[in-house]
Amino acid sequence: VSSPDTQHAEARQPVLGLLGGTGEQGSGLALRFAASGLDVVVGSRDPGRAAAAAADLSATLAAVPGAGRVSGADNGSCARQSDVVVVAVPWAAHEHTLRDLAGELAGRVVVDCVNPLGFDKRGAYALEVPQGSAAQQAAELLPQSRVVAAFHHVSAVLLRDTDLPAVHCDVLVLGEDREATDLVAALADRIPGMRGVFGGRLRNARQVEALTANLISVNRRYKTHAGVGITGV
Amino acid sequence: VSSPDTQHAEARQPVLGLLGGTGEQGSGLALRFAASGLDVVVGSRDPGRAAAAAADLSATLAAVPGAGRVSGADNGSCARQSDVVVVAVPWAAHEHTLRDLAGELAGRVVVDCVNPLGFDKRGAYALEVPQGSAAQQAAELLPQSRVVAAFHHVSAVLLRDTDLPAVHCDVLVLGEDREATDLVAALADRIPGMRGVFGGRLRNARQVEALTANLISVNRRYKTHAGVGITGV
Repeated sequence: VSSPDTQHAEARQPVLGLLGGTGEQGSGLALRFAASGLDVVVGSRDPGRAAAAAADLSATLAAVPGAGRVSGADNGSCARQSDVVVVAVPWAAHEHTLRDLAGELAGRVVVDCVNPLGFDKRGAYALEVPQGSAAQQAAELLPQSRVVAAFHHVSAVLLRDTDLPAVHCDVLVLGEDREATDLVAALADRIPGMRGVFGGRLRNARQVEALTANLISVNRRYKTHAGVGITGV
Repeated sequence: VSSPDTQHAEARQPVLGLLGGTGEQGSGLALRFAASGLDVVVGSRDPGRAAAAAADLSATLAAVPGAGRVSGADNGSCARQSDVVVVAVPWAAHEHTLRDLAGELAGRVVVDCVNPLGFDKRGAYALEVPQGSAAQQAAELLPQSRVVAAFHHVSAVLLRDTDLPAVHCDVLVLGEDREATDLVAALADRIPGMRGVFGGRLRNARQVEALTANLISVNRRYKTHAGVGITGV
C-alpha cells in the first residue's frame, strides 16, 4: 500500500492562489474555484484583509459539500503556497506587483486576467501597453513562470452571486505552452456553465483584454452582465 | 389610395451594396441578405466579375422563395445604387477604395467588416492601423457617411454553405450613430441564427477586428468555423 503522502501526491489537485484575491474579480474566482473543490489562497498586499476575505469566503462555502479550504496570505506567501496563481490585481498595480513577485512566481503557472482599461464620460476604452498586453507584460516580467491569459470576460457580479449555480460563458485561454493552457482550460471547465477554449498565442492577448471595454458597452445598453461565447466549438 | 410610388417608398427595404462583393465574405453576405428578401448589388473593381458573381448568386437563389434580386456593378455604381454599403474588400485595398469612393458613399450607412490581419508561420495577428482600426480609418475617409463596424466574425464558409439554413452567431455592431447601429443590428437579425448586438463606439472597434485572429487560432485547434456569441443578452 502507498503511504498517505504518496496517495496525497498522486491525487493532489493544484493549489490555486489569487493575487488581488480580495477584489471583486479575485474573490469571485476564489469562491467558484473553492466551491469546485480546490484549495484556494486569497492573496493581498495586506495579510489582514486577505484573512478577512478568506474567512468571509469560508463562511459562504460552509454550505457547499466538497468545497476546498480557503486561506488568506500576503501576495508573496500566496504565490509560494500555490501551483497556479491568478493575477487579479488592478491594472495600475500589475507591473510592480509582478516585478516584486518574480521570484515567488518562478515555476508557477501564472494566469493573467487583468484588463488594461481606461474610463471616461463615454465609457471604457483600451489602454496602450508597451508590451502589447497585460499578459505579454507578465511574460516579460516573469521569465521563469508559464504565463497564460484567461478569465478576462467573466462577470465578477455573476461569479459572486451565490444564488447562481452556474456561470454560463466561455473562457478564452491564451498562451505559448500547451500543457499550461490545457491546465487552465481544465480549471475553467471546473466551474459549472463555464468552458475553457484555447484562443491563441500571447501576441493575440491584447484584443481579448480590450474586448472587455465592448462588454461594458453591452452591459450599459442591455442592462446585463454580458460574457463571451465561442460558437462552433 | 396612395400611388404605387408612394407605396413603394413606404414599404421600401434598403438596397444593400457590397464593395468587394465577389470575395468570400462579400459573396457570403450577399447570398444571405438576398435570401432574406433584400435587393443586393455586388460590387467589384471589375464589373464583369461582379456580373458573373451576381449571376451565380441569382442561380443559387432561384430556389429561395421571396429572395431579393442580385445585380452586379463596379464599386462606384454599387455605392450609388445602395442605401447601405458593406465594405468587404481585402485590408490591402481598404484605404484606397474608400478614398476613391468617398463621394459615392456620402449619405450612405457604410458597414465596415474588414479585419486588418497579418499572417506568418505562427498564424494570424493584428496589424497596426494609424487610425486605430479599419472602421476608424473608414470614418476618417468618409466624413459624409455614417460608418458602422459589424460582421467581423462571421465565417465566410458558413455563410456560403447553402446546406446550412442558419448561421448561429452574434454580430457585434459598433458606431457613433444610434439610428445607424440599430439599422445594421436589424440587418444582422434578418439572417436566420444571427443576432445583432450593440458593441460600443468606434474607438473600441480595434479589438473586435483583431479578435478574428483569435478565432483563426480556435479554428485551427478545434477544426471548426468559430464565431462569437454574447452571453447575458
